[in-house]
Amino acid sequence: GMNPDLASERQTASFSVEKLTAQLDGGAEHTRIRRAVVEAIECDPVFSRENQYFQSQNERYEAAVRKAVHLQKKMHEMGWTEDGPEFKYIYRALSGDIAFLLHRIFMRSISVLGSDKQIAKWIPLATQYQLIGSYAQTELGHGTYLQGLETTAVFDITTQEFILNTPKISAMKWWPGDMGRSATHTVVFAQLYIHGKCYGVHPFIVQIRSLQDHSLCPGITAGDIGPKMNFEHVDNGYLMLQNVRVPRENMLNKFCEVQPDGTYARWGSQKINYFTMTTVRISLISDEVIIPLMKACTIAIRYSVVRRQSKLKPGEQEAKILDYQTQQEKLLPQLAAAYAFHFINNYLQELFDKVYREIQGKKFDTLPELHAFSSGFKAMVTQYCTSAVAICLQACGGHGYSLLSGLPSLYTKIVASCIYEGENTILLLQTARFLIKCFMAAGAGQPVPPSVTYLAAVKPGKCPAKNKLDFLSPDVYAEAYQHMAARLISSTAAKLQDLIQSGVKKTDAWNQCTVQLVQAAKAHCHYITVKNFAETVEKLETKAGIQKIMKHLCDLFALHGIFSNGGVFLHDGYVSGAQMDMVTASYLDLLAVIRKDAVPLVDAFDFTDKSLNSALGSYDGQVYQRLYEWAQKSPTNKQMSPAYERYLKPLLHNTLSKL
Amino acid sequence: GMNPDLASERQTASFSVEKLTAQLDGGAEHTRIRRAVVEAIECDPVFSRENQYFQSQNERYEAAVRKAVHLQKKMHEMGWTEDGPEFKYIYRALSGDIAFLLHRIFMRSISVLGSDKQIAKWIPLATQYQLIGSYAQTELGHGTYLQGLETTAVFDITTQEFILNTPKISAMKWWPGDMGRSATHTVVFAQLYIHGKCYGVHPFIVQIRSLQDHSLCPGITAGDIGPKMNFEHVDNGYLMLQNVRVPRENMLNKFCEVQPDGTYARWGSQKINYFTMTTVRISLISDEVIIPLMKACTIAIRYSVVRRQSKLKPGEQEAKILDYQTQQEKLLPQLAAAYAFHFINNYLQELFDKVYREIQGKKFDTLPELHAFSSGFKAMVTQYCTSAVAICLQACGGHGYSLLSGLPSLYTKIVASCIYEGENTILLLQTARFLIKCFMAAGAGQPVPPSVTYLAAVKPGKCPAKNKLDFLSPDVYAEAYQHMAARLISSTAAKLQDLIQSGVKKTDAWNQCTVQLVQAAKAHCHYITVKNFAETVEKLETKAGIQKIMKHLCDLFALHGIFSNGGVFLHDGYVSGAQMDMVTASYLDLLAVIRKDAVPLVDAFDFTDKSLNSALGSYDGQVYQRLYEWAQKSPTNKQMSPAYERYLKPLLHNTLSKL
Repeated sequence: GMNPDLASERQTASFSVEKLTAQLDGGAEHTRIRRAVVEAIECDPVFSRENQYFQSQNERYEAAVRKAVHLQKKMHEMGWTEDGPEFKYIYRALSGDIAFLLHRIFMRSISVLGSDKQIAKWIPLATQYQLIGSYAQTELGHGTYLQGLETTAVFDITTQEFILNTPKISAMKWWPGDMGRSATHTVVFAQLYIHGKCYGVHPFIVQIRSLQDHSLCPGITAGDIGPKMNFEHVDNGYLMLQNVRVPRENMLNKFCEVQPDGTYARWGSQKINYFTMTTVRISLISDEVIIPLMKACTIAIRYSVVRRQSKLKPGEQEAKILDYQTQQEKLLPQLAAAYAFHFINNYLQELFDKVYREIQGKKFDTLPELHAFSSGFKAMVTQYCTSAVAICLQACGGHGYSLLSGLPSLYTKIVASCIYEGENTILLLQTARFLIKCFMAAGAGQPVPPSVTYLAAVKPGKCPAKNKLDFLSPDVYAEAYQHMAARLISSTAAKLQDLIQSGVKKTDAWNQCTVQLVQAAKAHCHYITVKNFAETVEKLETKAGIQKIMKHLCDLFALHGIFSNGGVFLHDGYVSGAQMDMVTASYLDLLAVIRKDAVPLVDAFDFTDKSLNSALGSYDGQVYQRLYEWAQKSPTNKQMSPAYERYLKPLLHNTLSKL
Repeated sequence: GMNPDLASERQTASFSVEKLTAQLDGGAEHTRIRRAVVEAIECDPVFSRENQYFQSQNERYEAAVRKAVHLQKKMHEMGWTEDGPEFKYIYRALSGDIAFLLHRIFMRSISVLGSDKQIAKWIPLATQYQLIGSYAQTELGHGTYLQGLETTAVFDITTQEFILNTPKISAMKWWPGDMGRSATHTVVFAQLYIHGKCYGVHPFIVQIRSLQDHSLCPGITAGDIGPKMNFEHVDNGYLMLQNVRVPRENMLNKFCEVQPDGTYARWGSQKINYFTMTTVRISLISDEVIIPLMKACTIAIRYSVVRRQSKLKPGEQEAKILDYQTQQEKLLPQLAAAYAFHFINNYLQELFDKVYREIQGKKFDTLPELHAFSSGFKAMVTQYCTSAVAICLQACGGHGYSLLSGLPSLYTKIVASCIYEGENTILLLQTARFLIKCFMAAGAGQPVPPSVTYLAAVKPGKCPAKNKLDFLSPDVYAEAYQHMAARLISSTAAKLQDLIQSGVKKTDAWNQCTVQLVQAAKAHCHYITVKNFAETVEKLETKAGIQKIMKHLCDLFALHGIFSNGGVFLHDGYVSGAQMDMVTASYLDLLAVIRKDAVPLVDAFDFTDKSLNSALGSYDGQVYQRLYEWAQKSPTNKQMSPAYERYLKPLLHNTLSKL
C-alpha cells in the first residue's frame, strides 16, 4: 500500500501531472516511447541494478560489460536503432550503467578526423565489435592543455611507420574509459615528429590488445587506474607505449597527412573539431546532470513528506519535515533549478540544431557563440546541480547518507561532471573571453549575437519594484539579472583595460581579473537561464494548471538567485536594501505555495522505482520497510565476520578467563 | 628525491614552519609528544592504512576491529593511558580508522546516567572488555526529537523486570555504531511505561549477543545497516526487540528510579545531560572536521605547485596551477579557514574548561551560552569545512577524483559531520533561539553573556574605510561583521515580533522566520570567528614571522567572507558599493601574497605521508610515480577479469568468426 502521508500529497495537485510529464518529454508521443523503452529495459533482469550498492569495482565492471553486450542483442530484438526515436531513452533507462561508451567516442573520432578510406576500414569493424575502441588523450600530467601532451609519434621513413613512445611518466595516458581492461584499440594523441621537427598533436589508431587472447601487444603497458569516487563500472585505464609501431595509414588524416617521403600536408577547416567538443558538452548536460538532479529532488522531496520529526505545534502529531520552512528552503529551490535547467537545455539544443544546419551549409559564424554558451552552461549547470544534489543528500539526514538512499552515488557521480569534458573554471573563462569581446564590439557599435546585445546598453538605473508583489513580475527580475550581468561584465572589462593601460602585461592583467571574469560569466548564464525560463512559461498552455505552477517555479528560481547573491544586485544600488527585503518576503512566500505541489512536481519527472534505485524515494513511500529489506541483503550480513573468531572472541574470552 | 617544483616553494618561506607547528600544537613539548605517538603508530604494520582504498566494507570492518584490539596491547606496551598526554594524539594518528568508539560512549553514558552501584558493576566489565558496548538511541523513524522515540520498556511488577519491545518498524534502532556485528551489550533508549502510564524516554542496559558464542540473544534481531557513503570500518547496526526482559537494576538510575512497587521517583539535576552532548560536539570539531580540512588543504596545495598546466605567458614553461588567480581563490580561503577554525576551537575549548570548572562547583549559569555556542560552531564549522573539502577535491581536477588522492574519502567522511551529533539546521536554530533571547534581554537592559553584549548596541552607521588598505585593519572588518550580525539578529527579532503582534501563533511565527534565524546564527558565529582570529593574531609572538603571516590569513578569512556574502554587508548601506570594490581589491591582493607561503603554511600542519594517505599530497611531491605505483596494486589489476572469457571474448570472436 501507499504511505498515507505521501498519498495525501497527490490528492491536492494544482495541475495535471501527466500533462506536465508530456510537456517535459516534448509531447505525449515521446512519453509513450520513453516508457516503452524503460519498460523493456527494466523487465530484463540482465539490466537490473538491484544489488549495485553492494558490489565491488570488479563486479560493477563485469556487470557493465555484460549489459553492453546484452544491449546489442536487446536492440536487435526490439528493433531499436541508433537513428530511431527510442535510442536517446536507452541510456537514461540504464542510468548510464554500461560499458563501451568510449567505443562510441572512438568511432566518432574516426568519423570526424579520419579520411573516407579510414572510415571505410575502421567503422564497420567497430560497429560489428570486431574490435573494442577507446580514446587516449589525457595524460597523467596533461589534461585541458592539449598542446602540452608529451606522448611522441616519430615518423620512420624507412618502414613508413610511426613509432609511438611514452618518454616519461607524466606522458602516460591516464583516465581513458574502457581502456583499463576492455579495449583492443585506441586513438592515441601524440606529438608528431618528422625528421626531428615537431608538428603538434595528432591522432593515431593503435592496437593495444590481441584480438585472439586479449593479451597486451608488444611495447604496450596498460591497466586500470584503480578506485574512483564513482564510475566503478568504467575501466578507466593507463597506457604506456614503448617503441610501438603503427603503419603510416593509422594517423587519422582527414585534415592533414604525412606523405611517404615525410612531407607534411594540411588542408581543410579544423573548426569542426571545436564542434565535436561542443556536441559532447551539450549532450552530457541532460543525461549526466539534470536527470540526476531530478532524481535527487524526487528522492528528497518524497522522503520529506514521509518523514515526520518534532512538533510544529504542541499537542499535534510530529510534523512532516517538508512543513518546516528551512526544509522547504533547502529543497524547493533545487526543484525549481531542475526545471530551469531542463528548459535552458532545450534552448541549447535548439541553438545547437540551428548551428548544425548552418555548418552543413559551410557557415561557421555562429560557432563561437555556441562554443561560448555551451562552455558556460556546462560549467554553470554542473556546478549548480552538484551543489543541489549535495543539499538534497544532507536534507535527508542520516538516511540520505546511506548508499541505499541512492543519494550518495548521485552525488559522487555528478561531481565528476564539474571536471570532465572541460574543467569548469577554464570553461567559464572561455565564456568570459567571448563576453568581453562582445562587450568591446558592442561598445564600438559593431554587431554582436542577439543573446549579448544587452551588453551594448549598460546604464545605471534603479529597480522599479515598489512592493513584494512587483518581484513576481518576470520583467522586473529579468531586468535586475540583466543589469547585474551587464555591470559585472563591463566593470571587469574596465578593470582589464585599466591594468593594461597602467602597463601590466596583457596576460598578467587577464590573470588578475580571472576571479571576476568567472563571476561575470556565471552571471551571464544565470541571467539567460532566468530569461529563458520566463519566456518558456509565457509560451506554455494556460490549461491544466501547468503554466501557473511553472510561473511559481520560475519566480522561485529567480528570487532564490537574488536572495542568495544579494551582493551583486545591491552593489550599485540597482536593488535597494528595502527592495531586497521585498525579494526575501516574496521568496519565502513562494516556498509555502510551491510546497503544496512539491510531490506532484517530482512525480512529473516520471522516474520508476527501478531507475531511482532508492530506499527513500520509491513511489509508494514505504521508506522504512525498504531500508530494512535492503540492508538485510548487504554482504555485511551474509555471515558472521571472521573478525569474531580472530579478534573479538579472544578479546572477550581472554578477559573472561582471567576472572 | 623531492620534486623541484615543490622544493622551491619551501626555500622562500617567510616564517619558521617548525615554530608555527609548535604554535598550533600549543607548545613544542606537545609537538614532541604528538610526533612520538604518530611514529609509534605508523611504524606498526597492524595500523597500516596502505590498502584502504582497495578494501571492501567487510575488510574495512575487520581491520578496524583488529586495530582496536591491537591498540589495547600497544597502549600497554607504550605506557600510554587514557589520562596521559599521549591519548589525544592516538585517534589522530589512526585517522579515526578504528572500532569500538561506541564502546567508549557506552561507558560514558553509564558513568553519567548510572548510579554508583551501576558504575561499580558495569564500568570494570567494559574497561576489561568482558563485554563490548554500544549506544542505541536513534531509530529508523526518529532522530533529533528524542521524545518521539517509539521503543517501549514496560515494567512488569511481578518479575521486577522491564519488557522491551519494538512496536513497529519505525521504532527499530538504526545507525548505532559497533552494534551491527560487534556489540554484546547496548544502552537502549525507550519509553518507560508503569501501570500503563508513560514516563518518557529512559536508558536501559540490554545484552544483545551471547558472551560465549556471540549469537543473538532471545528476542533480539540485529544486523548491519549496510553500505554508507563512508565509515565502512564501522558496523552501524539495527536492532529489534521482542519481549526482551531486563532486570529492574538495568535502568540507568542516577536521576530517577522505578521502585519495586512500581513507584516512579526522580531527583537531581538533569542539566548535566545537556553537558554531555556539548562535550561530544566540541570534541568532534577538531578531530573530525578541522584536521580533515587541514589534510585536504595540504594535498590540494602541494599538488597545485607540482601540477603545471597551460601557459600564463607565451613562450614560457607551463605554469604551476597555483599561480592562477582562480586556483588561489579556490584554495587559499580554505587554508585561511582551517587556521581560523583551529583558533576558534581553542576558544571553545577554553570556554568549555571554564564551564566545566563551574559545573564542578555546581554552577550551571554559563551552560546555556556554552550549549548555544557549541551548537552554532559545530554547525558552522562542519558546513564550512565540508564545502571547503569539496572545493579542494574539485580543484585537483581528475586526479582529485581518484580515491588514491585521499580527497574523496575526506569528503565522504566529513559530510557526515553535518548530520550526526545534531543536524546542522536544528543546531543553528538553537543558537538563534539563544541569540534572540539575549537580544531581547539586552534591549530590556538585562545582563547578557559577554560574547553577545554587542547585541545591546545595534545602531545604524557606516563603515569608515576610505581605501583598500583600511580593510586590512581588523578593527574595520570585525566592526563590519559585528554590525552585520547584530542587524540580522535584530531584524529577525523584529519580524518575529511583528508576526506575533499581527496575530500569527508563536510557533507558526517562529517557523516563518527560521530561514532568517539560521542566517543570523551563522552570521554571529562568523563574526565571533573573525574577532577571535584577530585577537589571536594580536597575542602571537612577533618573532619568526608567524604573526605577520597569520595576520595575512586572518585578513583573507575576513575579506573572503565579506566578498562572498556581500549582500548582508551592503544591505543597509553599512558597506557601500565603492567600499565593496576596496574589499575585493584587498582580497585579491592578499591571494597573491599568501600564495608565496602556501606550501610552508600546509607543511606547518605536520602531517606525515602515512596520515595523509594520498598519492597527490606526499611531502616529496612525486605525484605521478605514486599514482602509477598505487594503481598497480588495485584489485582491478590483479588478474584478467572474468568479463573477458564470459562476454568480451564471445563478442569479439563471434563476430570475427562470421567474416
